[in-house]
Amino acid sequence: MTQKTILLDHGSGGVASQNLISELFLKYLDNPVLHSLEDAAVIDNKEGQLAFTTDSYVVDPIFFPGGDIGCLAVNGTINDLAMRGAKPLALSLGLILEEGFSLAELERVIVSISNACNHAQVPIVTGDTKVVPKGKGDKIFINTSGIGIVTEGINISATKAQKGDAIILSGSMGDHGITIMTRRAGVSMDGKLESDSMALHTMVGRLIDELPDAIHTLRDPTRGGVATSLNEIAAASKLSIELDEETIPVNPEVRAACEILGLEAIYLANEGKCLVIVNGDSAQQALKIMHDCPEGKEAAIIGTMGDGKAGRVAIKTPVGGTRVVTPLHGEPLPRIC
Amino acid sequence: MTQKTILLDHGSGGVASQNLISELFLKYLDNPVLHSLEDAAVIDNKEGQLAFTTDSYVVDPIFFPGGDIGCLAVNGTINDLAMRGAKPLALSLGLILEEGFSLAELERVIVSISNACNHAQVPIVTGDTKVVPKGKGDKIFINTSGIGIVTEGINISATKAQKGDAIILSGSMGDHGITIMTRRAGVSMDGKLESDSMALHTMVGRLIDELPDAIHTLRDPTRGGVATSLNEIAAASKLSIELDEETIPVNPEVRAACEILGLEAIYLANEGKCLVIVNGDSAQQALKIMHDCPEGKEAAIIGTMGDGKAGRVAIKTPVGGTRVVTPLHGEPLPRIC
Repeated sequence: MTQKTILLDHGSGGVASQNLISELFLKYLDNPVLHSLEDAAVIDNKEGQLAFTTDSYVVDPIFFPGGDIGCLAVNGTINDLAMRGAKPLALSLGLILEEGFSLAELERVIVSISNACNHAQVPIVTGDTKVVPKGKGDKIFINTSGIGIVTEGINISATKAQKGDAIILSGSMGDHGITIMTRRAGVSMDGKLESDSMALHTMVGRLIDELPDAIHTLRDPTRGGVATSLNEIAAASKLSIELDEETIPVNPEVRAACEILGLEAIYLANEGKCLVIVNGDSAQQALKIMHDCPEGKEAAIIGTMGDGKAGRVAIKTPVGGTRVVTPLHGEPLPRIC
Repeated sequence: MTQKTILLDHGSGGVASQNLISELFLKYLDNPVLHSLEDAAVIDNKEGQLAFTTDSYVVDPIFFPGGDIGCLAVNGTINDLAMRGAKPLALSLGLILEEGFSLAELERVIVSISNACNHAQVPIVTGDTKVVPKGKGDKIFINTSGIGIVTEGINISATKAQKGDAIILSGSMGDHGITIMTRRAGVSMDGKLESDSMALHTMVGRLIDELPDAIHTLRDPTRGGVATSLNEIAAASKLSIELDEETIPVNPEVRAACEILGLEAIYLANEGKCLVIVNGDSAQQALKIMHDCPEGKEAAIIGTMGDGKAGRVAIKTPVGGTRVVTPLHGEPLPRIC
């Protein structure tokens, strides 16, 4: 394309829109279904129930260590499907671009989306682009919606957690949130801080295939972090949760950054981690499956579902005390995803 | 809620987000699937192929005669499903709110979404809300994605149009586009100018049920108008299109406003109209079915698919001449939907 930035015409539905589609989107995201460019994609159905989810991404900055808004949008929506036990079938891609946004940066985002889709083996099959005047948006906002299939008999939900279930976290917590925060705060850290943006459906698929009855609840602790997700699970299951702080994996770099910024990692967003609530008897098997997968090699049992006060999440601290973990009240920084 | 405007906290995923969900979204949009508030909705599947579509809505102003951004988002996505011959199953709702946006206006939009969903009998089953800082968005952007089922054997596509097919337009053209434009230009018109925002799936469902083999192509001429949609159909089918200008329905108020603003109605966006490309022998039957439906009572045959120059759309003018209708090149005004 001859222009260097997004113009209002790129959202007109006319010739400029068509050029953007053919010269950028189809160049990187092409597949037979998307290629037809009809009002809706039509794809083969499969047996089972339908899972359907949507997420908008407004993260600032749009590029950060470990990822960008593009791979985040692909992996995040795939993970929302996986958390219901669904095998992802296809994604949609809705872009809201700000007039004046760099076409080179847009291309970088689309390449990242393409790479994430290829890696996850989940295609974009339908899309839409709107352009808003300069100052009425912020570079790029992305909506990805996703559809998937839940095998008959699989019913994974926060209400299904049972007393005695083990709580597994698939890896270290807070990496995504602290990476965005330190970037925005201009804090330079020693060591390697990077987002954990990652698709989890392959590991989750193995867990469900091998332990179909034992996996009760799955949640990816994004906004609000592990603390907020566990509070939601405790409330939905009408059980209590007991955590052991010493067992929760946190990268040393994340711990150090949290201390400097006065934050708790348990409230920070994750974009490539999940909580697995599994029958206690199958916990070691689940852990073994997760350790076998690159997505779960640092997985750890961090607590259990109890029959204490319904909805209460308590954590045993390393010095032997116990404190209640409430859900997130105020966002430390907006636009984390 | 005690606040009067959207705060950054409403997008945090924490307690403020939960309050917005329970006190506003569930109040108006509740249904058993949405109520579960899981990462993805799980719904019953049906036989047939899956249709999947997405659209973001950034219309300015958000309230206008005949509708608002809320009903537009519901009807527009339902129509995109209907244009592939799909029966809509469910919608997703992704909101990007600007900090400081009025909660009363948000409630008005959500009520409009609720009314449109109830009228169309298509539920919102999953959603997401993000908040961006003041000046980084513009009140409210909405993404609706939709899923539907295409009955086995139905294959409606722009490539399916055949020589001799009749082209039916379901009603007057340009109403939505001109309404938004006159509002934005501050032009006050005599008479009644209002958006045609409307869901078309019921009428389209009847057409397909009664004439399954005769309906070849369906398109809703939104951005770029009838001219751009017909150019897309001519290109995809490798046929020519001959239109008769005198037969194309245009409301007198739209015609008058177009003259004042120097616009052509054939390029203006519609949000409740469709083009039906139907076997010539079944055209009168299709027209009768459409006239029977409130959505199509002004439907008219406006042209035919021909075997002239592939991709060419020509129109016979009332004075007897013929001119070529090109697709839209430059958007007269952005943010029309």
